[in-house]
Amino acid sequence: MTNPFYNKNVVSIRDFTRNDLEYLFHVADNINSNSLCEALRNKILGLVFFEPSTRTRLSFESAMNSLGGTCIGFSESSSSSTEKGENLNDTLVTMNQYVDALVLRHQKDGVARFASEICTKPVINAGSGTEEHPTQAMLDLYTIFKELGTIDNLNIGIFGDLKYGRTVYSLLYGLSNYNPTVYLISPDLLQLRSDALSDIREKLSIEQHSNLSDVISKLDVIYTTRIQKERFPDIQEYERVKGSYRIDESLLKNTKDNLIILHPMPRSEEIPPSLDTTKYAKYFKQIRYGKLIRSALLYLIFTEHPEY
Amino acid sequence: MTNPFYNKNVVSIRDFTRNDLEYLFHVADNINSNSLCEALRNKILGLVFFEPSTRTRLSFESAMNSLGGTCIGFSESSSSSTEKGENLNDTLVTMNQYVDALVLRHQKDGVARFASEICTKPVINAGSGTEEHPTQAMLDLYTIFKELGTIDNLNIGIFGDLKYGRTVYSLLYGLSNYNPTVYLISPDLLQLRSDALSDIREKLSIEQHSNLSDVISKLDVIYTTRIQKERFPDIQEYERVKGSYRIDESLLKNTKDNLIILHPMPRSEEIPPSLDTTKYAKYFKQIRYGKLIRSALLYLIFTEHPEY
Amino acid sequence: MTNPFYNKNVVSIRDFTRNDLEYLFHVADNINSNSLCEALRNKILGLVFFEPSTRTRLSFESAMNSLGGTCIGFSESSSSSTEKGENLNDTLVTMNQYVDALVLRHQKDGVARFASEICTKPVINAGSGTEEHPTQAMLDLYTIFKELGTIDNLNIGIFGDLKYGRTVYSLLYGLSNYNPTVYLISPDLLQLRSDALSDIREKLSIEQHSNLSDVISKLDVIYTTRIQKERFPDIQEYERVKGSYRIDESLLKNTKDNLIILHPMPRSEEIPPSLDTTKYAKYFKQIRYGKLIRSALLYLIFTEHPEY
Repeated sequence: MTNPFYNKNVVSIRDFTRNDLEYLFHVADNINSNSLCEALRNKILGLVFFEPSTRTRLSFESAMNSLGGTCIGFSESSSSSTEKGENLNDTLVTMNQYVDALVLRHQKDGVARFASEICTKPVINAGSGTEEHPTQAMLDLYTIFKELGTIDNLNIGIFGDLKYGRTVYSLLYGLSNYNPTVYLISPDLLQLRSDALSDIREKLSIEQHSNLSDVISKLDVIYTTRIQKERFPDIQEYERVKGSYRIDESLLKNTKDNLIILHPMPRSEEIPPSLDTTKYAKYFKQIRYGKLIRSALLYLIFTEHPEY
Repeated sequence: MTNPFYNKNVVSIRDFTRNDLEYLFHVADNINSNSLCEALRNKILGLVFFEPSTRTRLSFESAMNSLGGTCIGFSESSSSSTEKGENLNDTLVTMNQYVDALVLRHQKDGVARFASEICTKPVINAGSGTEEHPTQAMLDLYTIFKELGTIDNLNIGIFGDLKYGRTVYSLLYGLSNYNPTVYLISPDLLQLRSDALSDIREKLSIEQHSNLSDVISKLDVIYTTRIQKERFPDIQEYERVKGSYRIDESLLKNTKDNLIILHPMPRSEEIPPSLDTTKYAKYFKQIRYGKLIRSALLYLIFTEHPEY
Repeated sequence: MTNPFYNKNVVSIRDFTRNDLEYLFHVADNINSNSLCEALRNKILGLVFFEPSTRTRLSFESAMNSLGGTCIGFSESSSSSTEKGENLNDTLVTMNQYVDALVLRHQKDGVARFASEICTKPVINAGSGTEEHPTQAMLDLYTIFKELGTIDNLNIGIFGDLKYGRTVYSLLYGLSNYNPTVYLISPDLLQLRSDALSDIREKLSIEQHSNLSDVISKLDVIYTTRIQKERFPDIQEYERVKGSYRIDESLLKNTKDNLIILHPMPRSEEIPPSLDTTKYAKYFKQIRYGKLIRSALLYLIFTEHPEY
């Protein structure tokens, strides 16, 4: 097939079809950094991180380096000329001339799309605002696919902060390429925003719950997100609900045998360390799948005629 | 010809002749990072930035990486041992043993020269104090040369903060290898320092103005620099003059057809975004020329017998 | 011989025998980054620095890059997800999946050992707490070995802050593989901790002094460490003693002819710059030996059958 990622932007998970995603998974399955260790020789990836990030930034760096490419950039706006008052447009136009593709993280919605319109090189959205984190959704889907063999017909619980967690929206749109039933489980305050919800309902079978224990026995996947204290106007409100948004081991007595628990990380108290050694815990393996997906994605963006 | 850059320091633009510069331009014209992508394999460039910088630092990194070399270093003094009170001498002696050449930026005049005396490896001045930024001058001259075919006999307006803008002094000394007429245009408060002015007057034909509109019709080049509010003792004084140091589109009605507008970037309000799409705007292309010049310079510093 | 470093952790100098160290020195003597410039191609070293560091971090980066490998990571906890409250375990598990070995610095004792238990990739301790800095001890020993031809039977003075200087403990344990006489010279407040002292006394011949001038004529090596003002509860106490913990040139009249002065750097006032040009000063050469030792160590960790 024609490589649908070659020289393309990755701004939103919505820009890719199920076929595109499955081709990406196929390449991630087969990518071998030993045989491809010179594949991206001479390619420079620009890391343009206006928000700090360990996992996402290092995941891209590791992927790029393992294919023979290099990375340059900045990982916080304080070390860039934006401190001198430089505008975003000029920073992007500049980076565009130094690199072969850009990976961008920004606190505002829409910045990745804006960047893709300004830049002549491919722009990969590594998280913009609260809405999009397409490569996270790709790796989340890939993890489910690898661990359970399919994404269709699963019961998938998404649990925690559904309002501000930027990975949730991308994941939901990604899932809409398949036909799972999605259980959204969150405190009232952190429910999915209503505009997104009505949009998503047209594409996906959705149930809303406020208690994980009500639905846990049905789930094939629990996708947990971090609840941030600072989202609550009143700390007492946080203290009141936090116990309900923690996957206690007692909850896990009543589950399907091959339930998997995922988390985009970093986690806070919602998954206690005691879960790490259970068979359900796949959130560390998810990190490894993340490197594979990003390696595959970079390889495809830079390679017109890939080996796979 | 013998490569005049091989294993040499680049501390001041004054250390290079017109022949040297034109050889550099010739290499920048011909440098091909595909055929030279292994040229600097095993070379390590040390980035020693005591002041933050996006453009200059990333430009060097991009150039070095595209020729197969690597970069290490720090981009702000806070992440270096200088926080533990280490003196500059020891930091430089240390870096000198880890790398094959150093790129140095420092807020004080004279530090690059000091470094070049301490270090046994070539030192490239990436901006020290308010006086010198030789690689910026090289790329500025190269941009003029590429866009207008010559630097001789041009009318070149230098506009904005001529007192504190470190690129201005280097550019003037660079221009003194050619015979342009230079129009210095600035508020009284930000005029070129008198000692430098009298020195420059011996080498260059200079006119001083306080209003761009008085001379714009004669100019082949407008080189704009950023006016920083904080230079003014009184913010009202800044507010009063700032309108005169902005290239308004109305000013551009009366210009030569092939006028070019340059800026070392980052810009503030002195060039409105509406100019970006005019034929005069070359400040983004200037960034690309910057990468070419720095690639050529690094290649020549590390290569005794270059291909060009 | 079998390579004792292959795929091994480097947590404590105590984990290595005299034979191991001498094999490392042998490789450091012979390592040639020209012939080995592709040796670590495709290897990624993770730099996990929870405390800032110039020298150690850049030394590892320079060593890794010179052998064809690459580095990723962070050099201060502020730019990592630990700011979002991520726990150390998760940061380490994540890095472990992105890299082929980790270099770790942390302000707490025991973290490197903890990391080595969590990670499946080799962990190199680049300083944890006040106790261990094994690669510094390796390069200190190598410097003595190179400059004096032996470590046995020497009189070695260790001078300055023996309580908090993390290099001191590692060096003492390293020296216990040989049979020098060690003179510990420090203010009362900064003496070696008593538990370590009694442990070390079983392995090494130790004398304690509070005045360098009492013993300087006997010494083959002076190993100086930085006295940090902030260790003193009372600044007047610091001011009172600091003069005694400075290697004045007058002290050097009465020394052995081939005395060498070392310092793990960065230095403060304990070695005045005027000493730098004396024949005794080896602390800058020590930096070069440091790069060689770290190059050798990385080469051996990643290479089952080394060339040497």
